[in-house]
Amino acid sequence: MITLHHLRIGRSIFTLWLLEEIGCDFDVKTYLRDENFRAQADLKAVHPLGKSPVIEDGDLLLSESGAITNYLLTKYDTDHRMHPSQDNLAQWARYQQWLAYPEGSVFAPLLVKMMTLRSGVEHPVLSPFSMAEIALHFNHIADQLGDNDFILGDSFSGADIGITYMISMGERLGLMADYPSLTAYVKRNCARPAFLAAIEKGVE
Amino acid sequence: MITLHHLRIGRSIFTLWLLEEIGCDFDVKTYLRDENFRAQADLKAVHPLGKSPVIEDGDLLLSESGAITNYLLTKYDTDHRMHPSQDNLAQWARYQQWLAYPEGSVFAPLLVKMMTLRSGVEHPVLSPFSMAEIALHFNHIADQLGDNDFILGDSFSGADIGITYMISMGERLGLMADYPSLTAYVKRNCARPAFLAAIEKGVE
Repeated sequence: MITLHHLRIGRSIFTLWLLEEIGCDFDVKTYLRDENFRAQADLKAVHPLGKSPVIEDGDLLLSESGAITNYLLTKYDTDHRMHPSQDNLAQWARYQQWLAYPEGSVFAPLLVKMMTLRSGVEHPVLSPFSMAEIALHFNHIADQLGDNDFILGDSFSGADIGITYMISMGERLGLMADYPSLTAYVKRNCARPAFLAAIEKGVE
Repeated sequence: MITLHHLRIGRSIFTLWLLEEIGCDFDVKTYLRDENFRAQADLKAVHPLGKSPVIEDGDLLLSESGAITNYLLTKYDTDHRMHPSQDNLAQWARYQQWLAYPEGSVFAPLLVKMMTLRSGVEHPVLSPFSMAEIALHFNHIADQLGDNDFILGDSFSGADIGITYMISMGERLGLMADYPSLTAYVKRNCARPAFLAAIEKGVE
């Protein structure tokens, strides 16, 4: 049985969504932030980084959203509804790329933007850097998406989870006015029954 | 035949190192930065993000260091010298976690620190955040390493490439005084024949 250690409010809602898409048995342990919006000691007791998402499966304690997706789909998505088989190695590699890309490339400039916005203090180098990088990445995602419903084509995959997270972060930061196809993509994903079930379980 | 699109000076030297560890046939196309240390249009012609590393293998064009490592080792490391088999799924998952972790968690605070240092301008929120996160991650890496030679135990794996990159970035930023086991780890990795061959090919 999988246990998801879920910190409210944060990115682990996206792992909860993935678990709902998979439809496996799982349990959710919920953690709350303190008054400064920081994770507390209870989460640090689970994983030394004190971050979320973390999943537990028997002896395995796993962090990093992309690695968690990789593990869960390799274990449960054996008919390859949501991830390509390694038998087509090039296709699997492209999926790995789109799985790594959100946290590996898109998150850092969004984080900088979030922190300059929240603090009300811009920075002469970091602020213009973050805006240029965010535009580069959102345009790249929009180009990849094209007229498709999902990031790897016409069917939903594990790679859509992280991409949806990045765009929804862009929405919260008020950055999406120029990317109608991306906001439509997020709206489409957030209407999925599994997403709604995750919100029901992880937010309400 | 693999082609590595290699931007000097930057992280693609670590992909070159991986290729040397694998020992497969590959070709290196080298790109230079402009006077502002930016990648130029020639790299943008290869990949829309204009970043490096990118590898080409026939029709496959692949970015994201972790995905490239995943692809190359799945394709070439068939006797699992440098990555665990999926047959032991928990072990494979831990490897995926340590493959995702450098770019997914450690890089962002190092990038912030590099840009505040280079600009000579601190930020009231980003600067203390980056220093706290860097300490958290370097202590976590040191705990994981323990007395082992490599991040997953006593043998070198693909996960050591990204971890080495993060610590060597920490070294360039003058942040490693408190982490003797991590500087010893980098020194050990940088003495490997494959690393020296990569430096010979990619830097000189």
